[in-house]
Amino acid sequence: MNSRIENSLPSQLDRIDRVRTAREARAILRDKHITLSHGSGGKATHTLIDAMFLPAFRNAALDGFSDAAVLPLRTPSSNGTSAPSFAFTTDSYVVSPLFFNGGDIGKLAVNGTINDLAMSGARPLCLSLGLILEEGLDMEILRRVIDSVAASAAAAGVPIVTGDTKVVPRGKADLIFINTSGVGAVREGITLSAHTIVPGDVVIVSGDMGDHGLAVMMAREALEIETDISSDTAPLHTMVEGILDAAPGTRLLKDPTRGGLATTLNEIARRAGVGIAVSEESIPVKREVRGACEILGLDPLQIANEGKLVAIVPAGEANAALAAIRTHEAGTNAAIIGEVSREPEGLVLLRTPIGGSRVLDMLVGDPLPRIC
Amino acid sequence: MNSRIENSLPSQLDRIDRVRTAREARAILRDKHITLSHGSGGKATHTLIDAMFLPAFRNAALDGFSDAAVLPLRTPSSNGTSAPSFAFTTDSYVVSPLFFNGGDIGKLAVNGTINDLAMSGARPLCLSLGLILEEGLDMEILRRVIDSVAASAAAAGVPIVTGDTKVVPRGKADLIFINTSGVGAVREGITLSAHTIVPGDVVIVSGDMGDHGLAVMMAREALEIETDISSDTAPLHTMVEGILDAAPGTRLLKDPTRGGLATTLNEIARRAGVGIAVSEESIPVKREVRGACEILGLDPLQIANEGKLVAIVPAGEANAALAAIRTHEAGTNAAIIGEVSREPEGLVLLRTPIGGSRVLDMLVGDPLPRIC
Repeated sequence: MNSRIENSLPSQLDRIDRVRTAREARAILRDKHITLSHGSGGKATHTLIDAMFLPAFRNAALDGFSDAAVLPLRTPSSNGTSAPSFAFTTDSYVVSPLFFNGGDIGKLAVNGTINDLAMSGARPLCLSLGLILEEGLDMEILRRVIDSVAASAAAAGVPIVTGDTKVVPRGKADLIFINTSGVGAVREGITLSAHTIVPGDVVIVSGDMGDHGLAVMMAREALEIETDISSDTAPLHTMVEGILDAAPGTRLLKDPTRGGLATTLNEIARRAGVGIAVSEESIPVKREVRGACEILGLDPLQIANEGKLVAIVPAGEANAALAAIRTHEAGTNAAIIGEVSREPEGLVLLRTPIGGSRVLDMLVGDPLPRIC
Repeated sequence: MNSRIENSLPSQLDRIDRVRTAREARAILRDKHITLSHGSGGKATHTLIDAMFLPAFRNAALDGFSDAAVLPLRTPSSNGTSAPSFAFTTDSYVVSPLFFNGGDIGKLAVNGTINDLAMSGARPLCLSLGLILEEGLDMEILRRVIDSVAASAAAAGVPIVTGDTKVVPRGKADLIFINTSGVGAVREGITLSAHTIVPGDVVIVSGDMGDHGLAVMMAREALEIETDISSDTAPLHTMVEGILDAAPGTRLLKDPTRGGLATTLNEIARRAGVGIAVSEESIPVKREVRGACEILGLDPLQIANEGKLVAIVPAGEANAALAAIRTHEAGTNAAIIGEVSREPEGLVLLRTPIGGSRVLDMLVGDPLPRIC
């Protein structure tokens, strides 16, 4: 199987293989049953991927970390080396409730998969739409979701080109589950990978953290907290084009979805084998999000975002990248939040306002299931 | 949106648009709720697609009939006209039970999506795997399914390159739902389309009809009928390569999955605006499948297959195509079953052994829900 892709990233494969083997060796799946934590995007998800999925599907394009796989489009007539590359990604959406302040499952499904392609440096070309519907679903609810999918796809300029619909009996699903997969064209000359990160690189976030997760939580629980928190769901592919134009040395882009910024930074630090130090004060969080989190006992840095990205860029290109992000309507609150260090390898340190620092860990458990 | 794909099949777009507009005008969605029939692949599914999905997602690549969309891979540096084409498809699998004679949900999910790519004339390059798991799922069941996905992907030579896992609370799904999407490289010089079909063309099926649906039914109901019926699930991409080598004028390939051969032939007749006449005697059906269908009141021609294809080929290439199919291990029982006629437009006629003929209709309702 590997022969198909052996030319894609030859210099990195050895290293990826070594890192992967080490991760698999560490990952032991002790759970006898699937729990909600396995879908949280945090530690249990990583263990499941490392202990079961990566060993089963071992191939060079699958590394369990990238938002999208990148492969050459080898046609029967091409010799392979000159084949253009495409990016390919998939995401299922099971958010509950289906509608919330600022979005719905349809908008989320379009923007989320567009963003996974964008984070791999690809220009999104098209999406698929796989629906699993529960018998008895109100046709008007389906119509609202489909209209939202269509409007979001049109707004982003990325068409839905293929689809599938399944129906399961009442009580065997929860109204609507959506899978969107996507294909993108990879920008030449750009290699986004944790393995290119070096000490001194700068960490940027494109805006306020935690809005999406809190908006869904508010809609789900009908909480009596007076807020106007709205999901940040947005397509980021044009923002990414701006970043790559302004900062062509960009190391890595990730969207901090499930598990939030804390989980994403930990994934990056482990993958790159570096330390990351961020300043708590510099991380943008809306006052109402911070307040609601305090009441609910949640950490805004562990809450999912759906229209934000983390960029790791060389120090010399940080200001250019920041400026590019801020020109995008979804990036006006972008901020430099920290930098990459040699030590402590694989850890993320949060510098507090009073001058101390603590380890910022990956999400454990799942305080907010079905957030996307 | 359409500008991206306007060069893909320019000569056919006008016709596709006219046909589609006529279908949308005819399709009126009277149901207030989703029923199992909307997932059957038969009439209700077609109405839902024509009345809601096609108007919402209107674009040239989406025609509601093809197993996969075909688009050019336009990179930022390509001018578009020289871009190689790729095929893209998606399918969700909700089969119940998860394991049955001859297969399981994992094998089905790999082979089904490979076949959708193959039917579009594409060589499958890679698959995605989207899992929706129910909280409490036994880890050993998941492991069996994942091992089956991995073994099936390896056997077909098509790697799983990207994935996603979601978990929903107990009672909000049914153990495991799988979405696989796939990307393929389109074979140059081949245009498979219902619009190329002309009267005189020959209809071939690659083997016995109805095995998969019956095997699932047997597993689900623990029926007391003594049989050894086994799912036919198999990847058909190498069979398709053989057909296209032997019969390069092949008009159309379709796999008769949900709704069975009857539904597939009706779709083809309607799409092509032709009549299709098939001989009941010439359609291969295993004796035990025919017997079980009689007991259960089912028509083997309306039952899903997962490792069979229907080929419409020019009369002059029919024997070559048949011979090519028969060299494939999944095609030893292939047969010529009928031919395309000018009249009656849009209808399928079944010639009975005693010399009469009756209209063979598309599946209505869903006698076998969750068959794939």
